[in-house]
Amino acid sequence: MLTKTPHLFDDATRVTAGDSRWQGRTSEDYWAFVGPFGGATAATILHGLIDHPQRAGDPLSFTVNYCAPVAPGAFDLDLRLVKANRSNQHWCVEITQGGSDVVTLATAVFAERHPSWSHQQAAFPGATPFDQTLPYPKVAAPWVKQYDFRFVKGEPHLGGPAKPAPPNASSRLWISDRVPRKVDALSLMAMSDAFFGRVFHARRELVPFGTVSLTTYFHADAADLATEDTTRVLGAADAKIFHKSYGDQNGELWSPSGRLLATTTQIAYFKA
Amino acid sequence: MLTKTPHLFDDATRVTAGDSRWQGRTSEDYWAFVGPFGGATAATILHGLIDHPQRAGDPLSFTVNYCAPVAPGAFDLDLRLVKANRSNQHWCVEITQGGSDVVTLATAVFAERHPSWSHQQAAFPGATPFDQTLPYPKVAAPWVKQYDFRFVKGEPHLGGPAKPAPPNASSRLWISDRVPRKVDALSLMAMSDAFFGRVFHARRELVPFGTVSLTTYFHADAADLATEDTTRVLGAADAKIFHKSYGDQNGELWSPSGRLLATTTQIAYFKA
Repeated sequence: MLTKTPHLFDDATRVTAGDSRWQGRTSEDYWAFVGPFGGATAATILHGLIDHPQRAGDPLSFTVNYCAPVAPGAFDLDLRLVKANRSNQHWCVEITQGGSDVVTLATAVFAERHPSWSHQQAAFPGATPFDQTLPYPKVAAPWVKQYDFRFVKGEPHLGGPAKPAPPNASSRLWISDRVPRKVDALSLMAMSDAFFGRVFHARRELVPFGTVSLTTYFHADAADLATEDTTRVLGAADAKIFHKSYGDQNGELWSPSGRLLATTTQIAYFKA
Repeated sequence: MLTKTPHLFDDATRVTAGDSRWQGRTSEDYWAFVGPFGGATAATILHGLIDHPQRAGDPLSFTVNYCAPVAPGAFDLDLRLVKANRSNQHWCVEITQGGSDVVTLATAVFAERHPSWSHQQAAFPGATPFDQTLPYPKVAAPWVKQYDFRFVKGEPHLGGPAKPAPPNASSRLWISDRVPRKVDALSLMAMSDAFFGRVFHARRELVPFGTVSLTTYFHADAADLATEDTTRVLGAADAKIFHKSYGDQNGELWSPSGRLLATTTQIAYFKA
Protein backbone atom coordinates (compact mmCIF):
# COMPACT_ATOMS: atom_id res chain seq x y z
CA MET A 1 0.00 0.00 0.00
CA LEU A 2 1.51 3.28 -1.11
CA THR A 3 -0.06 5.12 1.79
CA LYS A 4 1.45 2.80 4.37
CA THR A 5 4.93 2.34 2.95
CA PRO A 6 6.58 5.70 2.55
CA HIS A 7 8.35 6.19 -0.74
CA LEU A 8 12.14 6.09 -0.37
CA PHE A 9 12.16 9.69 -1.56
CA ASP A 10 9.82 10.75 1.24
CA ASP A 11 11.97 8.87 3.69
CA ALA A 12 15.12 10.54 2.34
CA THR A 13 13.65 14.05 2.55
CA ARG A 14 11.95 13.68 5.93
CA VAL A 15 12.31 16.41 8.53
CA THR A 16 11.38 16.60 12.17
CA ALA A 17 10.09 19.87 13.51
CA GLY A 18 11.85 21.52 16.42
CA ASP A 19 11.38 24.73 18.30
CA SER A 20 13.94 26.76 16.40
CA ARG A 21 16.02 23.98 14.85
CA TRP A 22 14.57 21.24 12.70
CA GLN A 23 16.28 17.93 12.07
CA GLY A 24 16.93 15.80 9.03
CA ARG A 25 19.36 13.06 8.12
CA THR A 26 21.11 11.88 5.00
CA SER A 27 19.81 8.81 3.18
CA GLU A 28 22.06 6.03 1.91
CA ASP A 29 19.52 5.50 -0.85
CA TYR A 30 20.21 8.97 -2.24
CA TRP A 31 23.97 9.03 -1.75
CA ALA A 32 26.15 10.55 -4.49
CA PHE A 33 29.94 10.82 -4.71
CA VAL A 34 31.15 12.57 -1.56
CA GLY A 35 27.81 13.45 0.00
CA PRO A 36 24.08 13.12 -0.49
CA PHE A 37 22.54 13.85 -3.91
CA GLY A 38 22.15 17.64 -3.95
CA GLY A 39 18.58 17.34 -5.19
CA ALA A 40 17.66 15.35 -2.09
CA THR A 41 19.25 17.96 0.16
CA ALA A 42 17.36 20.72 -1.65
CA ALA A 43 14.09 18.77 -1.40
CA THR A 44 14.68 18.18 2.29
CA ILE A 45 14.98 21.91 2.89
CA LEU A 46 11.86 22.52 0.83
CA HIS A 47 10.10 19.80 2.80
CA GLY A 48 10.89 21.62 6.03
CA LEU A 49 9.58 24.89 4.61
CA ILE A 50 6.37 23.33 3.30
CA ASP A 51 5.75 21.72 6.69
CA HIS A 52 6.51 24.92 8.59
CA PRO A 53 3.47 26.31 10.45
CA GLN A 54 4.21 29.84 9.21
CA ARG A 55 4.44 28.83 5.55
CA ALA A 56 1.86 30.36 3.19
CA GLY A 57 1.56 29.69 -0.54
CA ASP A 58 3.53 27.47 -2.90
CA PRO A 59 7.24 27.42 -3.75
CA LEU A 60 8.05 29.99 -6.43
CA SER A 61 11.82 30.33 -6.34
CA PHE A 62 14.48 28.30 -4.57
CA THR A 63 18.24 28.80 -4.52
CA VAL A 64 20.58 26.46 -2.72
CA ASN A 65 24.30 27.00 -2.26
CA TYR A 66 26.28 23.87 -1.48
CA CYS A 67 28.93 25.14 0.91
CA ALA A 68 30.52 21.82 1.90
CA PRO A 69 29.75 18.12 1.59
CA VAL A 70 27.06 16.97 4.02
CA ALA A 71 28.51 14.21 6.20
CA PRO A 72 26.54 10.97 6.62
CA GLY A 73 24.02 11.17 9.43
CA ALA A 74 21.97 13.85 11.13
CA PHE A 75 21.87 17.55 10.38
CA ASP A 76 20.06 20.60 11.71
CA LEU A 77 17.94 22.98 9.65
CA ASP A 78 17.51 26.57 10.71
CA LEU A 79 14.37 27.80 8.91
CA ARG A 80 13.95 31.55 9.15
CA LEU A 81 11.07 33.60 7.75
CA VAL A 82 12.93 36.77 6.79
CA LYS A 83 9.99 38.74 5.40
CA ALA A 84 6.30 38.09 4.87
CA ASN A 85 4.28 40.19 2.46
CA ARG A 86 0.62 40.04 1.53
CA SER A 87 1.07 37.33 -1.06
CA ASN A 88 4.64 36.11 -0.76
CA GLN A 89 7.24 35.04 1.80
CA HIS A 90 11.03 35.15 1.86
CA TRP A 91 12.88 32.41 3.71
CA CYS A 92 16.52 31.79 4.55
CA VAL A 93 17.68 28.31 5.55
CA GLU A 94 20.99 27.03 6.88
CA ILE A 95 21.90 23.39 7.31
CA THR A 96 24.53 22.81 9.95
CA GLN A 97 26.30 19.76 11.25
CA GLY A 98 28.31 19.43 14.42
CA GLY A 99 27.02 22.59 16.00
CA SER A 100 27.79 25.56 13.83
CA ASP A 101 29.51 24.58 10.60
CA VAL A 102 27.22 25.59 7.73
CA VAL A 103 27.16 22.97 4.97
CA THR A 104 24.20 24.29 2.95
CA LEU A 105 22.70 27.77 2.56
CA ALA A 106 19.37 28.34 0.83
CA THR A 107 16.84 31.05 0.13
CA ALA A 108 13.28 30.49 -0.95
CA VAL A 109 10.30 32.53 -2.05
CA PHE A 110 6.79 31.20 -1.52
CA ALA A 111 3.81 32.83 -3.22
CA GLU A 112 0.06 32.60 -3.32
CA ARG A 113 -0.46 32.73 -7.04
CA HIS A 114 -3.43 34.46 -8.59
CA PRO A 115 -5.03 34.04 -12.01
CA SER A 116 -3.49 36.28 -14.67
CA TRP A 117 -2.80 36.55 -18.35
CA SER A 118 -0.97 33.35 -19.17
CA HIS A 119 1.38 32.54 -22.01
CA GLN A 120 3.82 29.69 -22.44
CA GLN A 121 6.35 31.00 -24.91
CA ALA A 122 8.81 28.11 -24.75
CA ALA A 123 8.01 25.22 -27.07
CA PHE A 124 7.51 21.72 -25.68
CA PRO A 125 10.58 19.85 -26.87
CA GLY A 126 8.68 16.65 -27.58
CA ALA A 127 9.90 13.10 -27.13
CA THR A 128 9.33 9.50 -27.98
CA PRO A 129 6.78 8.10 -25.51
CA PHE A 130 8.20 7.01 -22.15
CA ASP A 131 7.23 3.38 -22.76
CA GLN A 132 9.04 3.37 -26.08
CA THR A 133 12.26 4.86 -24.73
CA LEU A 134 15.03 2.68 -23.35
CA PRO A 135 15.95 3.07 -19.68
CA TYR A 136 19.48 4.26 -19.01
CA PRO A 137 21.51 1.39 -17.58
CA LYS A 138 21.91 1.59 -13.84
CA VAL A 139 25.10 3.27 -12.75
CA ALA A 140 27.00 2.94 -9.52
CA ALA A 141 25.85 5.98 -7.53
CA PRO A 142 22.96 5.01 -5.23
CA TRP A 143 20.90 8.14 -6.02
CA VAL A 144 20.91 7.34 -9.75
CA LYS A 145 19.27 4.00 -8.97
CA GLN A 146 16.29 5.86 -7.47
CA TYR A 147 15.39 7.32 -10.86
CA ASP A 148 14.29 5.88 -14.16
CA PHE A 149 16.16 7.97 -16.74
CA ARG A 150 15.18 7.44 -20.38
CA PHE A 151 17.19 9.45 -22.85
CA VAL A 152 15.47 10.79 -25.93
CA LYS A 153 18.54 12.72 -27.04
CA GLY A 154 22.10 13.19 -25.81
CA GLU A 155 22.46 9.97 -23.86
CA PRO A 156 25.90 10.13 -22.30
CA HIS A 157 28.54 7.80 -23.69
CA LEU A 158 31.19 7.97 -21.05
CA GLY A 159 34.67 6.65 -21.43
CA GLY A 160 34.26 5.49 -25.00
CA PRO A 161 36.78 6.18 -27.73
CA ALA A 162 37.35 9.84 -28.58
CA LYS A 163 34.85 11.09 -31.14
CA PRO A 164 35.45 13.77 -33.73
CA ALA A 165 32.16 15.56 -32.99
CA PRO A 166 32.40 18.88 -31.16
CA PRO A 167 31.48 18.85 -27.47
CA ASN A 168 27.72 18.94 -26.95
CA ALA A 169 26.19 19.19 -23.50
CA SER A 170 22.56 19.08 -24.60
CA SER A 171 20.29 16.28 -23.49
CA ARG A 172 16.60 15.46 -23.31
CA LEU A 173 15.22 12.66 -21.17
CA TRP A 174 12.27 11.30 -19.30
CA ILE A 175 12.80 11.41 -15.54
CA SER A 176 10.67 9.33 -13.22
CA ASP A 177 11.16 8.04 -9.73
CA ARG A 178 12.23 4.38 -10.08
CA VAL A 179 9.25 3.51 -7.89
CA PRO A 180 6.62 5.79 -9.45
CA ARG A 181 5.62 8.70 -7.21
CA LYS A 182 3.29 11.54 -8.11
CA VAL A 183 5.28 14.63 -9.11
CA ASP A 184 4.98 17.41 -6.53
CA ALA A 185 7.09 20.44 -5.67
CA LEU A 186 9.48 18.28 -3.66
CA SER A 187 10.24 15.85 -6.47
CA LEU A 188 10.43 18.71 -9.00
CA MET A 189 13.04 20.31 -6.77
CA ALA A 190 15.06 17.09 -6.65
CA MET A 191 14.62 16.36 -10.37
CA SER A 192 15.89 19.84 -11.20
CA ASP A 193 19.26 18.64 -9.89
CA ALA A 194 18.98 15.16 -11.43
CA PHE A 195 20.54 15.98 -14.78
CA PHE A 196 24.02 14.51 -15.07
CA GLY A 197 26.84 17.04 -14.93
CA ARG A 198 26.97 18.86 -18.24
CA VAL A 199 30.73 18.47 -18.28
CA PHE A 200 30.29 14.68 -18.34
CA HIS A 201 28.31 15.05 -21.56
CA ALA A 202 30.63 17.61 -23.10
CA ARG A 203 33.83 15.76 -22.21
CA ARG A 204 32.31 12.27 -22.61
CA GLU A 205 33.99 11.23 -19.37
CA LEU A 206 33.45 11.41 -15.65
CA VAL A 207 35.58 14.10 -14.02
CA PRO A 208 35.57 15.54 -10.50
CA PHE A 209 32.38 17.60 -10.32
CA GLY A 210 30.22 19.40 -7.78
CA THR A 211 27.26 21.73 -7.98
CA VAL A 212 28.03 25.03 -6.26
CA SER A 213 24.73 26.88 -6.61
CA LEU A 214 21.36 25.79 -7.95
CA THR A 215 18.27 27.92 -8.63
CA THR A 216 14.87 26.54 -9.57
CA TYR A 217 11.72 28.46 -10.47
CA PHE A 218 8.35 26.78 -10.14
CA HIS A 219 5.84 27.61 -12.86
CA ALA A 220 3.09 25.39 -11.52
CA ASP A 221 1.48 25.57 -8.12
CA ALA A 222 -0.01 22.67 -6.15
CA ALA A 223 -3.32 22.96 -8.02
CA ASP A 224 -1.56 22.89 -11.39
CA LEU A 225 0.46 19.84 -10.37
CA ALA A 226 -2.69 18.08 -9.16
CA THR A 227 -4.21 18.70 -12.60
CA GLU A 228 -1.17 17.24 -14.36
CA ASP A 229 -1.34 14.16 -12.12
CA THR A 230 1.84 12.60 -13.45
CA THR A 231 4.71 10.48 -12.14
CA ARG A 232 7.26 11.64 -14.72
CA VAL A 233 8.62 14.73 -16.40
CA LEU A 234 10.41 15.39 -19.66
CA GLY A 235 13.67 17.10 -18.82
CA ALA A 236 15.84 19.16 -21.16
CA ALA A 237 19.23 20.50 -20.14
CA ASP A 238 22.12 22.28 -21.76
CA ALA A 239 25.21 24.32 -20.94
CA LYS A 240 26.52 27.58 -22.35
CA ILE A 241 30.09 27.69 -21.14
CA PHE A 242 32.87 25.85 -19.33
CA HIS A 243 35.65 28.15 -18.22
CA LYS A 244 38.29 28.27 -15.51
CA SER A 245 36.96 25.27 -13.57
CA TYR A 246 33.28 26.24 -13.57
CA GLY A 247 30.47 25.48 -15.96
CA ASP A 248 26.77 26.32 -16.09
CA GLN A 249 23.62 24.33 -16.73
CA ASN A 250 20.12 25.44 -17.68
CA GLY A 251 17.21 23.06 -17.68
CA GLU A 252 13.49 22.68 -18.14
CA LEU A 253 11.08 20.20 -16.57
CA TRP A 254 7.91 19.53 -18.59
CA SER A 255 4.82 17.53 -17.85
CA PRO A 256 3.99 14.83 -20.43
CA SER A 257 1.04 16.95 -21.54
CA GLY A 258 3.38 19.81 -22.50
CA ARG A 259 3.18 22.16 -19.53
CA LEU A 260 6.40 23.82 -18.37
CA LEU A 261 6.51 22.95 -14.66
CA ALA A 262 9.89 24.34 -13.66
CA THR A 263 13.04 25.93 -15.01
CA THR A 264 16.40 25.54 -13.36
CA THR A 265 19.96 26.75 -13.63
CA GLN A 266 23.13 25.87 -11.81
CA ILE A 267 26.83 26.56 -11.74
CA ALA A 268 29.20 23.73 -10.97
CA TYR A 269 32.85 23.14 -10.29
CA PHE A 270 34.73 20.67 -12.46
CA LYS A 271 38.29 19.48 -12.86
CA ALA A 272 39.34 18.84 -16.44
CA MET B 1 39.10 63.50 -15.12
CA LEU B 2 37.52 60.10 -14.72
CA THR B 3 39.65 59.36 -11.69
CA LYS B 4 38.54 62.49 -9.86
CA THR B 5 34.87 62.54 -10.71
CA PRO B 6 33.29 59.28 -9.64
CA HIS B 7 30.93 57.79 -12.17
CA LEU B 8 27.28 58.14 -11.13
CA PHE B 9 27.17 54.35 -11.00
CA ASP B 10 30.03 54.22 -8.51
CA ASP B 11 28.31 56.88 -6.48
CA ALA B 12 25.03 54.97 -6.55
CA THR B 13 26.61 51.70 -5.45
CA ARG B 14 28.94 53.12 -2.79
CA VAL B 15 29.16 51.48 0.60
CA THR B 16 30.78 52.51 3.85
CA ALA B 17 32.41 49.84 5.95
CA GLY B 18 31.30 49.34 9.51
CA ASP B 19 32.24 46.94 12.25
CA SER B 20 29.43 44.49 11.69
CA ARG B 21 27.00 46.66 9.72
CA TRP B 22 27.92 48.44 6.53
CA GLN B 23 26.00 51.40 5.16
CA GLY B 24 24.70 52.37 1.75
CA ARG B 25 22.06 54.74 0.44
CA THR B 26 19.70 54.84 -2.50
CA SER B 27 20.53 57.05 -5.47
CA GLU B 28 17.98 59.30 -7.16
CA ASP B 29 19.94 58.77 -10.38
CA TYR B 30 19.10 55.07 -10.34
CA TRP B 31 15.51 55.29 -9.14
CA ALA B 32 12.90 53.01 -10.74
CA PHE B 33 9.15 52.82 -10.12
CA VAL B 34 8.63 52.27 -6.40
CA GLY B 35 12.24 51.87 -5.30
CA PRO B 36 15.79 51.89 -6.58
CA PHE B 37 16.67 49.99 -9.76
CA GLY B 38 17.17 46.40 -8.57
CA GLY B 39 20.42 46.14 -10.50
CA ALA B 40 21.86 49.04 -8.50
CA THR B 41 20.81 47.41 -5.24
CA ALA B 42 22.42 44.14 -6.32
CA ALA B 43 25.61 45.93 -7.38
CA THR B 44 25.71 47.78 -4.08
CA ILE B 45 25.65 44.48 -2.19
CA LEU B 46 28.35 43.10 -4.46
CA HIS B 47 30.36 46.28 -3.92
CA GLY B 48 30.27 45.68 -0.18
CA LEU B 49 31.38 42.08 -0.61
CA ILE B 50 34.23 43.00 -2.97
CA ASP B 51 35.43 45.65 -0.52
CA HIS B 52 35.16 43.32 2.47
CA PRO B 53 38.54 42.54 4.07
CA GLN B 54 37.69 38.82 4.28
CA ARG B 55 36.75 38.53 0.61
CA ALA B 56 38.86 36.22 -1.53
CA GLY B 57 38.43 35.55 -5.25
CA ASP B 58 35.97 36.89 -7.80
CA PRO B 59 32.17 36.78 -7.89
CA LEU B 60 30.96 33.47 -9.33
CA SER B 61 27.29 33.32 -8.41
CA PHE B 62 24.95 35.92 -6.98
CA THR B 63 21.29 35.60 -6.03
CA VAL B 64 19.24 38.49 -4.74
CA ASN B 65 15.70 38.27 -3.42
CA TYR B 66 13.80 41.53 -3.38
CA CYS B 67 11.69 41.25 -0.24
CA ALA B 68 10.21 44.75 -0.17
CA PRO B 69 10.79 48.11 -1.87
CA VAL B 70 13.85 49.92 -0.53
CA ALA B 71 12.75 53.31 0.80
CA PRO B 72 14.66 56.41 -0.29
CA GLY B 73 17.69 57.10 1.89
CA ALA B 74 20.11 55.10 3.98
CA PHE B 75 20.18 51.37 4.53
CA ASP B 76 22.31 48.90 6.47
CA LEU B 77 24.07 45.89 4.97
CA ASP B 78 24.82 42.86 7.08
CA LEU B 79 27.60 40.98 5.25
CA ARG B 80 28.19 37.53 6.67
CA LEU B 81 30.81 35.03 5.54
CA VAL B 82 28.91 31.79 6.08
CA LYS B 83 31.59 29.36 4.91
CA ALA B 84 35.09 29.67 3.49
CA ASN B 85 36.69 26.81 1.60
CA ARG B 86 40.10 26.50 0.02
CA SER B 87 39.07 28.19 -3.21
CA ASN B 88 35.58 29.55 -2.67
CA GLN B 89 33.49 31.52 -0.19
CA HIS B 90 29.78 31.56 0.63
CA TRP B 91 28.23 34.83 1.75
CA CYS B 92 24.80 35.84 3.01
CA VAL B 93 23.72 39.47 2.96
CA GLU B 94 20.70 41.24 4.38
CA ILE B 95 19.75 44.83 3.70
CA THR B 96 17.66 46.37 6.44
CA GLN B 97 16.07 49.75 6.94
CA GLY B 98 14.66 51.20 10.11
CA GLY B 99 16.37 48.73 12.39
CA SER B 100 15.29 45.23 11.57
CA ASP B 101 12.95 45.10 8.59
CA VAL B 102 14.69 43.09 5.85
CA VAL B 103 14.14 44.61 2.41
CA THR B 104 16.70 42.58 0.45
CA LEU B 105 18.22 39.13 0.98
CA ALA B 106 21.17 37.90 -1.05
CA THR B 107 23.62 35.03 -1.25
CA ALA B 108 26.89 35.06 -3.13
CA VAL B 109 29.67 32.66 -4.00
CA PHE B 110 33.17 33.97 -4.64
CA ALA B 111 35.82 31.78 -6.21
CA GLU B 112 39.47 31.81 -7.09
CA ARG B 113 39.27 30.40 -10.57
CA HIS B 114 41.95 28.14 -11.98
CA PRO B 115 42.85 27.31 -15.57
CA SER B 116 40.92 24.35 -16.98
CA TRP B 117 39.55 22.87 -20.14
CA SER B 118 37.49 25.66 -21.64
CA HIS B 119 34.62 25.53 -24.08
CA GLN B 120 32.05 28.15 -24.98
CA GLN B 121 29.14 26.15 -26.32
CA ALA B 122 26.65 29.00 -26.69
CA ALA B 123 26.88 30.89 -29.95
CA PHE B 124 27.52 34.64 -29.98
CA PRO B 125 24.20 36.09 -31.13
CA GLY B 126 25.85 38.79 -33.23
CA ALA B 127 24.62 42.30 -33.81
CA THR B 128 24.89 45.38 -35.93
CA PRO B 129 27.81 47.43 -34.61
CA PHE B 130 27.03 49.67 -31.62
CA ASP B 131 27.74 52.83 -33.59
CA GLN B 132 25.33 51.79 -36.33
CA THR B 133 22.49 50.94 -33.95
CA LEU B 134 19.94 53.56 -32.90
CA PRO B 135 19.75 54.48 -29.22
CA TYR B 136 16.46 53.71 -27.52
CA PRO B 137 14.63 56.97 -26.79
CA LYS B 138 14.97 58.06 -23.21
CA VAL B 139 12.10 56.98 -21.01
CA ALA B 140 10.84 58.46 -17.81
CA ALA B 141 12.46 56.25 -15.16
CA PRO B 142 15.71 57.84 -13.93
CA TRP B 143 17.68 54.58 -13.99
CA VAL B 144 16.93 54.03 -17.68
CA LYS B 145 18.58 57.38 -18.42
CA GLN B 146 21.84 56.06 -16.96
CA TYR B 147 22.13 53.50 -19.76
CA ASP B 148 22.53 53.66 -23.49
CA PHE B 149 20.27 50.89 -24.79
CA ARG B 150 20.53 50.11 -28.50
CA PHE B 151 18.15 47.45 -29.70
CA VAL B 152 19.31 45.07 -32.41
CA LYS B 153 16.14 42.99 -32.18
CA GLY B 154 12.90 43.10 -30.23
CA GLU B 155 12.80 46.81 -29.45
CA PRO B 156 9.73 47.30 -27.31
CA HIS B 157 6.79 49.09 -28.89
CA LEU B 158 4.70 49.95 -25.89
CA GLY B 159 1.17 51.18 -26.00
CA GLY B 160 0.83 51.02 -29.76
CA PRO B 161 -2.11 49.48 -31.56
CA ALA B 162 -2.69 45.79 -30.95
CA LYS B 163 -0.70 43.66 -33.36
CA PRO B 164 -1.72 40.27 -34.71
CA ALA B 165 1.72 38.73 -34.08
CA PRO B 166 1.96 36.26 -31.22
CA PRO B 167 3.57 37.51 -28.01
CA ASN B 168 7.36 37.49 -28.23
CA ALA B 169 9.53 38.40 -25.26
CA SER B 170 12.88 37.99 -26.99
CA SER B 171 15.23 40.93 -27.38
CA ARG B 172 18.85 41.63 -28.18
CA LEU B 173 20.52 44.93 -27.45
CA TRP B 174 23.72 46.77 -26.75
CA ILE B 175 23.91 47.96 -23.16
CA SER B 176 26.38 50.64 -22.13
CA ASP B 177 26.53 53.07 -19.27
CA ARG B 178 25.28 56.41 -20.64
CA VAL B 179 28.60 57.88 -19.48
CA PRO B 180 30.94 55.13 -20.65
CA ARG B 181 32.47 53.11 -17.80
CA LYS B 182 34.67 50.07 -18.09
CA VAL B 183 32.65 46.91 -17.58
CA ASP B 184 33.51 45.17 -14.31
CA ALA B 185 31.72 42.68 -12.07
CA LEU B 186 29.68 45.48 -10.51
CA SER B 187 28.33 46.82 -13.78
CA LEU B 188 27.75 43.28 -15.09
CA MET B 189 25.68 42.64 -11.99
CA ALA B 190 23.60 45.76 -12.60
CA MET B 191 23.31 45.16 -16.34
CA SER B 192 22.01 41.65 -15.69
CA ASP B 193 18.91 43.34 -14.25
CA ALA B 194 18.77 46.06 -16.92
CA PHE B 195 16.63 44.20 -19.42
CA PHE B 196 13.12 45.59 -19.51
CA GLY B 197 10.46 43.37 -17.99
CA ARG B 198 9.77 40.53 -20.39
CA VAL B 199 6.05 41.01 -19.83
CA PHE B 200 6.32 44.54 -21.28
CA HIS B 201 7.68 43.01 -24.50
CA ALA B 202 5.21 40.16 -24.59
CA ARG B 203 2.16 42.32 -23.79
CA ARG B 204 3.44 45.41 -25.65
CA GLU B 205 2.40 47.54 -22.70
CA LEU B 206 3.65 48.62 -19.31
CA VAL B 207 1.96 46.74 -16.49
CA PRO B 208 2.68 46.59 -12.75
CA PHE B 209 5.92 44.61 -12.49
CA GLY B 210 8.58 43.73 -9.97
CA THR B 211 11.53 41.34 -9.91
CA VAL B 212 11.21 38.87 -7.05
CA SER B 213 14.45 36.92 -7.37
CA LEU B 214 17.48 37.35 -9.62
CA THR B 215 20.44 35.02 -10.11
CA THR B 216 23.56 35.89 -12.10
CA TYR B 217 26.54 33.66 -12.87
CA PHE B 218 29.85 35.25 -13.78
CA HIS B 219 31.81 33.42 -16.47
CA ALA B 220 34.69 35.90 -16.54
CA ASP B 221 36.94 36.82 -13.65
CA ALA B 222 38.66 40.17 -13.13
CA ALA B 223 41.58 39.15 -15.37
CA ASP B 224 39.20 38.13 -18.17
CA LEU B 225 37.31 41.40 -17.88
CA ALA B 226 40.56 43.35 -17.98
CA THR B 227 41.42 41.56 -21.21
CA GLU B 228 38.05 42.42 -22.74
CA ASP B 229 38.54 46.08 -21.77
CA THR B 230 35.10 47.20 -22.92
CA THR B 231 32.47 49.72 -21.89
CA ARG B 232 29.52 47.85 -23.37
CA VAL B 233 27.96 44.42 -23.61
CA LEU B 234 25.62 42.74 -26.04
CA GLY B 235 22.63 41.52 -24.07
CA ALA B 236 20.13 38.86 -25.09
CA ALA B 237 17.05 38.08 -23.05
CA ASP B 238 13.96 35.95 -23.39
CA ALA B 239 11.17 34.42 -21.33
CA LYS B 240 9.72 30.93 -21.28
CA ILE B 241 6.46 31.35 -19.44
CA PHE B 242 4.02 33.79 -17.87
CA HIS B 243 1.57 32.11 -15.54
CA LYS B 244 -0.51 33.01 -12.50
CA SER B 245 1.07 36.44 -11.99
CA TYR B 246 4.72 35.40 -12.36
CA GLY B 247 7.01 35.22 -15.36
CA ASP B 248 10.62 34.26 -15.90
CA GLN B 249 13.54 35.79 -17.76
CA ASN B 250 16.81 34.31 -18.93
CA GLY B 251 19.59 36.44 -20.30
CA GLU B 252 23.14 36.52 -21.56
CA LEU B 253 25.73 39.30 -21.42
CA TRP B 254 28.42 39.12 -24.11
CA SER B 255 31.54 41.16 -24.71
CA PRO B 256 31.74 42.79 -28.16
CA SER B 257 34.50 40.32 -29.03
CA GLY B 258 32.12 37.39 -28.49
CA ARG B 259 32.96 36.18 -24.99
CA LEU B 260 30.09 35.13 -22.74
CA LEU B 261 30.67 37.21 -19.60
CA ALA B 262 27.59 36.37 -17.56
CA THR B 263 24.29 34.52 -17.66
CA THR B 264 21.30 35.57 -15.64
CA THR B 265 17.80 34.45 -14.78
CA GLN B 266 15.01 36.02 -12.80
CA ILE B 267 11.41 35.53 -11.79
CA ALA B 268 9.13 38.53 -11.61
CA TYR B 269 5.66 39.44 -10.48
CA PHE B 270 3.32 41.07 -12.96
CA LYS B 271 -0.29 42.17 -13.04
CA ALA B 272 -2.03 41.59 -16.37
